[in-house]
Amino acid sequence: MPTLVLLRHGQSQWNLENRFTGWWDVDLSPRGIEEARAAGALMRERGLDLDCCFTSVLTRAIRTLHLALHEMDRLWLPVTKSWLLNERHYGGLTGLNKQEMIDKVGEEQVKIWRRSFDIPPPPLPADSEYDVSRDRRYAGVAVPDTESLKDTIARVLPYYDAEIAPALTAGKRVLVAAHGNSLRALEKHLSNIGNEEIVSLEIPTGRPIVYELADDLTVERRFYLDEA
Amino acid sequence: MPTLVLLRHGQSQWNLENRFTGWWDVDLSPRGIEEARAAGALMRERGLDLDCCFTSVLTRAIRTLHLALHEMDRLWLPVTKSWLLNERHYGGLTGLNKQEMIDKVGEEQVKIWRRSFDIPPPPLPADSEYDVSRDRRYAGVAVPDTESLKDTIARVLPYYDAEIAPALTAGKRVLVAAHGNSLRALEKHLSNIGNEEIVSLEIPTGRPIVYELADDLTVERRFYLDEA
Repeated sequence: MPTLVLLRHGQSQWNLENRFTGWWDVDLSPRGIEEARAAGALMRERGLDLDCCFTSVLTRAIRTLHLALHEMDRLWLPVTKSWLLNERHYGGLTGLNKQEMIDKVGEEQVKIWRRSFDIPPPPLPADSEYDVSRDRRYAGVAVPDTESLKDTIARVLPYYDAEIAPALTAGKRVLVAAHGNSLRALEKHLSNIGNEEIVSLEIPTGRPIVYELADDLTVERRFYLDEA
Repeated sequence: MPTLVLLRHGQSQWNLENRFTGWWDVDLSPRGIEEARAAGALMRERGLDLDCCFTSVLTRAIRTLHLALHEMDRLWLPVTKSWLLNERHYGGLTGLNKQEMIDKVGEEQVKIWRRSFDIPPPPLPADSEYDVSRDRRYAGVAVPDTESLKDTIARVLPYYDAEIAPALTAGKRVLVAAHGNSLRALEKHLSNIGNEEIVSLEIPTGRPIVYELADDLTVERRFYLDEA
């Protein structure tokens, strides 16, 4: 049975500091490392085995995947990394402490940027210390300077169709280790969630979400593995 | 300039216990973890950057690669894993403490098996607890029950020609994180070492060996990075 497991990376240093992260490459916190290991231990304990894995090009997602696979004795599985699974690009909000941001532009404006489906935050200034557009890992990529959730979904879903869905159609058990908003894209698509609802769907860190799929990749069952 | 970096995995638990390991999937020891991190820190310090990586399907090599790449902030690099880069299969010697083996069959016989170019150890018994032939990672692979160094070289070099050499020809800087004998195969080929000499070439754990290559992949310079 085609199975898709979604795993949001464990807590990062900036999750801990309550800062907008986006494409800035922040590492896991000690708690995030433990969350990743616990996710792998849970998969092994429940007999959830895998055939291949996808992740972003951001350290916090890749390490979460590696730590989980190590717990499962599955480090040997093929892993494909793509920037198309990166977190939403938070534009000019990148690096800001969420409280500072609220103090600066008001809670309502922050809510609009964070919670609206199609309004992106202001672009990241070209001279920002958080500009990653010249990072070698994005060679040949038109790096955005901001993204709405809609923009993020618009790059994640074609990647799902081109790379992940074919593995599922072949009957594989696939793990995607990624980010709050790139995983929202997959949840929206699979669970057919509306634009209004998807913005407030919270995806917890380090808790494997399991989609059991029919041969045509429609959803038969969705559950949190720790509640199964 | 095409650059090939060879990295033997850090010390494993069975290196520490002085046991023949081969294809048995033993993890790194605490010292091995430190060796892997130090290799990555050294590459970063020396400004040795990379474009892609190859490793085996054995945990000790994969973790060595991951730990080194993490130190380099290069976890996002593409990594290809193949059983063709596995350690030599030690057949019936697998799992034996080297001293026990010497006590059992005599130092000379052990030396012959370990040090001869083309004489394999006796095959691993089919009922051995160290038989990995039904491990899922080897699905579709004719898993050997023993290998001489010659046999190991005979599987590593076609993989080099098919997968690694094309990346080098494209001008890439390639890291291969692997094992004493799969790396001997590459050293033998690149440095044109004879059958007699290759068996006694020691490749130390956790010390990056750098090959700077000409466009036709002949060797311009070979050195240990920590001696550069």
